[in-house]
Amino acid sequence: MVLYLVGLGLGSIDYMSLKAAEEIKNCYTIYLDTYTGFISKDLMNWLTKEFYGKLRLATRRDLEDNLGRILEEARETGIAILVPGDPLIATTHISLLVEAAKRKIPYKIIHGISIYSAAVSITGLQAYKFGRTTTLARFGDPRETYRIIKENLERGLHTLVLLDTADGGLTIPGALRKLLEAEDSLRYGIVREDTLAIGLARIGLQEELVKVAIVRELITESYPPPPHALIFPGELHF
Amino acid sequence: MVLYLVGLGLGSIDYMSLKAAEEIKNCYTIYLDTYTGFISKDLMNWLTKEFYGKLRLATRRDLEDNLGRILEEARETGIAILVPGDPLIATTHISLLVEAAKRKIPYKIIHGISIYSAAVSITGLQAYKFGRTTTLARFGDPRETYRIIKENLERGLHTLVLLDTADGGLTIPGALRKLLEAEDSLRYGIVREDTLAIGLARIGLQEELVKVAIVRELITESYPPPPHALIFPGELHF
Repeated sequence: MVLYLVGLGLGSIDYMSLKAAEEIKNCYTIYLDTYTGFISKDLMNWLTKEFYGKLRLATRRDLEDNLGRILEEARETGIAILVPGDPLIATTHISLLVEAAKRKIPYKIIHGISIYSAAVSITGLQAYKFGRTTTLARFGDPRETYRIIKENLERGLHTLVLLDTADGGLTIPGALRKLLEAEDSLRYGIVREDTLAIGLARIGLQEELVKVAIVRELITESYPPPPHALIFPGELHF
Repeated sequence: MVLYLVGLGLGSIDYMSLKAAEEIKNCYTIYLDTYTGFISKDLMNWLTKEFYGKLRLATRRDLEDNLGRILEEARETGIAILVPGDPLIATTHISLLVEAAKRKIPYKIIHGISIYSAAVSITGLQAYKFGRTTTLARFGDPRETYRIIKENLERGLHTLVLLDTADGGLTIPGALRKLLEAEDSLRYGIVREDTLAIGLARIGLQEELVKVAIVRELITESYPPPPHALIFPGELHF
């Protein structure tokens, strides 16, 4: 049989592909990755109802430590692993495919819409003017992220900063405070109170909000709940 | 009424989102952008059949010169403009939204799966290790593309090179020949016969092919028809 690695898209039912919706219907067990990305309540309810008795919520541990068991299950019946976004953008799941290949278990990848492209496109900025993308963890050192913004800026490029979605998610104001701290420590002069940035909340979801303003304003704005992201523009082409 | 700007995804029916399929059903006229990306024969046949009498094939000229007429149509009834991939990644369509906003015509964006993320993810390379993405035109100077590959490589980053899809599309061998010419002219020593690269053909479509090899081998390989893309890896993390 087949292991399906299925991208759910931006986290709402709307953004599942026709292929994803179709293929998982035929699967015997459906594991839902609950740790690499965002799943809206609506989508969660829909999946629970639609796949009652077949759906298993999977933590990182389930998909790593019990990987062998899941893969052997896929040898016998159709198994789907559902992942928010594109199932391979976070790369966590590539090990799953490597292991499946070793065990000669056939697999199929179903791409999903990723925040990696949607956040870029929604701003109207040119995709070709983006440098390296980075992430900011909720409890971690922001200085590496800050260095990447600097590296891109020096070449005139925009930076997409994806914000941690775990445990309720890192917010735009929370992320900006962390970056202002990094500035205090590194003194690059890149993110300051008067720096222009773009705050992105719940891209592709109903409450989607895109706000272009200086940091001081972005930090006091109110937003719908995460997932949030930030863009620091490089040279603007208009 | 509303102007829907709808991403079709990777070019097959499979990769349309549930939302896209649903929303366009209610539209009075459906314009299909035939110039910014790839649409498979199957998808074209499906759209033609499904939206018989409503579907208009639109060239760049139609969507630029006749923009005003289309927008005024959207004021009265639901209009959809279908675009391969994500409708805003190519940025051509942002002017449409700017004009709609000026005329106070409401619009909705429906994201699609973009090659910009799918090509990155399918390789298993870390998205965070990609530098700036670039494109290579079928009839154009490859030296700018070559400079971007160099710029990324100097920072240890991977480069995604999207290949022109117009007029049958630029192939992997065709693109590599152009880049070898750029090397002859610029002498950066980056793309040579023994350089490792990744050839990507028809990502997300049934005949999908990913081939990792040195340029000499990639150039003589046979591929399914375009769309094609290339990745030049920077530092590999395994």
